[in-house]
Amino acid sequence: MKYKLLIEANDRKGLVYKISKILYEYGLNIEQNTEFVDACSNKFFMRTEFSGDIIKQKLIDDIKAILPTNHMISLKNDDKKNIVLLVSKESHVLGDLLIRYESGELQANIKAVISNHDNTKKLTEKFGIPFFHIPTNSLSREQHEALVKKTINRFDPNIIVLAKYMRILTPDFVKNYQHKLLNIHHSFLPAFVGANPYDMAYERGVKIVGATAHYVTDELDEGPIICQDVVHIDHTYNSDDMCKAGKNVEKIVLSDALNLLLEDKVLTFNNKTVIL
Amino acid sequence: MKYKLLIEANDRKGLVYKISKILYEYGLNIEQNTEFVDACSNKFFMRTEFSGDIIKQKLIDDIKAILPTNHMISLKNDDKKNIVLLVSKESHVLGDLLIRYESGELQANIKAVISNHDNTKKLTEKFGIPFFHIPTNSLSREQHEALVKKTINRFDPNIIVLAKYMRILTPDFVKNYQHKLLNIHHSFLPAFVGANPYDMAYERGVKIVGATAHYVTDELDEGPIICQDVVHIDHTYNSDDMCKAGKNVEKIVLSDALNLLLEDKVLTFNNKTVIL
Amino acid sequence: MKYKLLIEANDRKGLVYKISKILYEYGLNIEQNTEFVDACSNKFFMRTEFSGDIIKQKLIDDIKAILPTNHMISLKNDDKKNIVLLVSKESHVLGDLLIRYESGELQANIKAVISNHDNTKKLTEKFGIPFFHIPTNSLSREQHEALVKKTINRFDPNIIVLAKYMRILTPDFVKNYQHKLLNIHHSFLPAFVGANPYDMAYERGVKIVGATAHYVTDELDEGPIICQDVVHIDHTYNSDDMCKAGKNVEKIVLSDALNLLLEDKVLTFNNKTVIL
Amino acid sequence: MKYKLLIEANDRKGLVYKISKILYEYGLNIEQNTEFVDACSNKFFMRTEFSGDIIKQKLIDDIKAILPTNHMISLKNDDKKNIVLLVSKESHVLGDLLIRYESGELQANIKAVISNHDNTKKLTEKFGIPFFHIPTNSLSREQHEALVKKTINRFDPNIIVLAKYMRILTPDFVKNYQHKLLNIHHSFLPAFVGANPYDMAYERGVKIVGATAHYVTDELDEGPIICQDVVHIDHTYNSDDMCKAGKNVEKIVLSDALNLLLEDKVLTFNNKTVIL
Repeated sequence: MKYKLLIEANDRKGLVYKISKILYEYGLNIEQNTEFVDACSNKFFMRTEFSGDIIKQKLIDDIKAILPTNHMISLKNDDKKNIVLLVSKESHVLGDLLIRYESGELQANIKAVISNHDNTKKLTEKFGIPFFHIPTNSLSREQHEALVKKTINRFDPNIIVLAKYMRILTPDFVKNYQHKLLNIHHSFLPAFVGANPYDMAYERGVKIVGATAHYVTDELDEGPIICQDVVHIDHTYNSDDMCKAGKNVEKIVLSDALNLLLEDKVLTFNNKTVIL
Repeated sequence: MKYKLLIEANDRKGLVYKISKILYEYGLNIEQNTEFVDACSNKFFMRTEFSGDIIKQKLIDDIKAILPTNHMISLKNDDKKNIVLLVSKESHVLGDLLIRYESGELQANIKAVISNHDNTKKLTEKFGIPFFHIPTNSLSREQHEALVKKTINRFDPNIIVLAKYMRILTPDFVKNYQHKLLNIHHSFLPAFVGANPYDMAYERGVKIVGATAHYVTDELDEGPIICQDVVHIDHTYNSDDMCKAGKNVEKIVLSDALNLLLEDKVLTFNNKTVIL
Repeated sequence: MKYKLLIEANDRKGLVYKISKILYEYGLNIEQNTEFVDACSNKFFMRTEFSGDIIKQKLIDDIKAILPTNHMISLKNDDKKNIVLLVSKESHVLGDLLIRYESGELQANIKAVISNHDNTKKLTEKFGIPFFHIPTNSLSREQHEALVKKTINRFDPNIIVLAKYMRILTPDFVKNYQHKLLNIHHSFLPAFVGANPYDMAYERGVKIVGATAHYVTDELDEGPIICQDVVHIDHTYNSDDMCKAGKNVEKIVLSDALNLLLEDKVLTFNNKTVIL
Repeated sequence: MKYKLLIEANDRKGLVYKISKILYEYGLNIEQNTEFVDACSNKFFMRTEFSGDIIKQKLIDDIKAILPTNHMISLKNDDKKNIVLLVSKESHVLGDLLIRYESGELQANIKAVISNHDNTKKLTEKFGIPFFHIPTNSLSREQHEALVKKTINRFDPNIIVLAKYMRILTPDFVKNYQHKLLNIHHSFLPAFVGANPYDMAYERGVKIVGATAHYVTDELDEGPIICQDVVHIDHTYNSDDMCKAGKNVEKIVLSDALNLLLEDKVLTFNNKTVIL
């Protein structure tokens, strides 16, 4: 059986030694091991992939015993994660994920697609995935979210991907799914926060457009950034052309970030990500 | 003799025909020709490189006669442009320009380097270029700028390059050198306007840092953007590492933008650049 | 009605004037116009987008009359082009094109998918596109190609996209579809010609992998290059990881090249492309 | 005192534990630690930065005792390395290194510049660095190399940078400086091996040009690759334009590779590099 061990703790002399000693004494086979110490905060981060037979809680307890008091430890097995996608009208990111899913490139179970529109229903169902249309009409934001939440919770997903979901989320909703909400924003944040980044980019006359995949927090477009990239444009691009040019970046940046989450490679600290 | 003709006008049917007719009747040899019509504003932009013998003003008058009333026309010969560099303490952009100058790669005459510090004096003078140290101590912003202006004006430069000049300029100074001030900002604008972009980038936890070369206008870091690029970073970069990583981008983005200006390829319109 | 005019000719003084004069006299509205002169060969290339009412052959004849004897002229209307896709086992490029087709991003009619395998049949038919399985078993290369040709010809396509079609084509086949065969090769050509570029890339220890979209000619992987791009990799990538990393580049490079063909922006000359 | 420990060995269970145990028992402070296991060859690679007081040979012996028999171990202190630059006519890479040296960005001592031409003498000496002109005229390759070797050896350099040195080296010369010769080749190897890559790139009509920094081995342009990058070009670039466009990439790729060597981050294995 394969496992991934994630640790965050205040740095101390001998942490690598003490942790690797335990893993060695369990007879485990380390396949990948990465450490990082943030010099600023004196925080130690570690990710280890190993294979072997263990009693999960016992291993965790043994490692906890040698860690400084304030720490985070997490031990994940290699089961495929369940994900739920939230989308609005645009289909390019959804379509890209579906194709990666179909070909086996996306190592996850897409359990459901939820949308406030119904135009992507046909596309989703082509791939045998349940589609839930939850229109917003005449509902308050809270009422609508309650319905979305209910549908999400039926599938108990490990990750909820906002694949161009154009609704602002309430703090309550965000809190409810902490460290589970992955969003793709269509600009190189922190530039062009909010709606219509391509219109703003056109207005400002930038020579690059981009995309940012990030965890969602209470503050709009302010969560920990996981992946970013840009593409070059020029004066011949109007707002629509920028939008088209940005689609490829949006797809790839989100897909890369999602893969990092699926492989349990992302730790967060101080509204930033540490990717091991 | 080689010339570069730049035209901006409201778009009309037949502009290309009418302009190329005049050039043809003068017996000129067109070597490069680019047009662009901004569909939004219905503006026509054109840049033509040609060779031949002309009386400049006569050709301009002939073309003006067939252009719509509100237009810009500019006819440049192929003489090397004169430039003056303004710098502060950091030397990497200055050094890069000096090396490109020395090797003949930078097709311009660097007439002078002006700085509010004196640490780059030795470096500058190695290359036989006059260095002017104008310290700011006990001078008001206006007094200091008056001295800088006086020194600049001795060389009547076509372009003034702010090669990491860390002083905020007064509207008066900017107005005085309109369309002549080229600045390099060490972020992918509009992200991280103002001082210390790398500190802000570190704080925000971005996965890219970049640089922006732009014309200077009254509004800080708000002028028309000419070139931008970014470089990927990760969680192991602190603010200093980002600064180091950004240096290569700063150098190249500024050098690319400067070359575009030297080749008369940059038109501006609505706080944007059209690069032909 | 919209048209795209493509011209290639030996360069002469006054070509732009003479051509734009004819377009002006026809009362046509030029929306985009690009020229390029290859100084080496003294060849003139031009692409003009215009709208208006014309008798196609008459306009062509009028322009031919003022062009030097050896020229190429082509006038395309704005109809959606028909394309046929040839694929083998890998589905990522096919899937990407299908999704772009479904969303309307790909401005073409996918008339058919032909494969020497049948694993992508289900995927293709989800999108309502006819799938033709033409297995190679016990057929000679010529016999197999004859069947493929017959199927292709039923749809009279403007472009045949080799979307990871892993069969080597005979000179006869290539000749039959000159300037119509677009291939994606999974390396930054001319590096790693032939089969298994990722294995070769792994063996060589390169730090980038890439993809090349090109027209197909008789010589394997030697046709005119349209688009290329690369992605950075490191020592942790084995051949399979490189393959995964390359998939995004393959998809985007092919899609970009296909769009250029669909917009009639690609001219060829001396085994190179001129993209206007 | 700061140290960098580099280890390569056949992988065994417990290596990380056993090595970190020794470092812990010495009371050393690990500041960075990276491991990599090449699954294909079952090779273990490790790089550790630590600070503390040690007797070098004793620590090495203790670690050797727990490593499998066939291993490489190397313990470097933090002293600035000495480098010697070999150049021919082109000055852009040399100039770039000199500027980085002058500003303190290049953490090394440039002890000498050796050239078969004398055109960069003035530039080199501006920076107070000894310049040795060793012309090739009427000398055999071996005679010329003997003189170059003699001059190099006066400075006992850790790294010899071929900063656009356009002479082919004899196997003897290469052998003499194994793992010390860093070359910059002006193409994305393995494309365009040998002289005049930009001419070959023009001929082939590629849409990218690039540069490769690599260790030098007997086979021309076949040594382990350390860094590579490319820049996009189009049909308007002739061979000279490609050369200009490539200069920035050459400078940065070489500078990046040199920094990796200076920080002892490069291990080699099977004609490939592992960069930790």
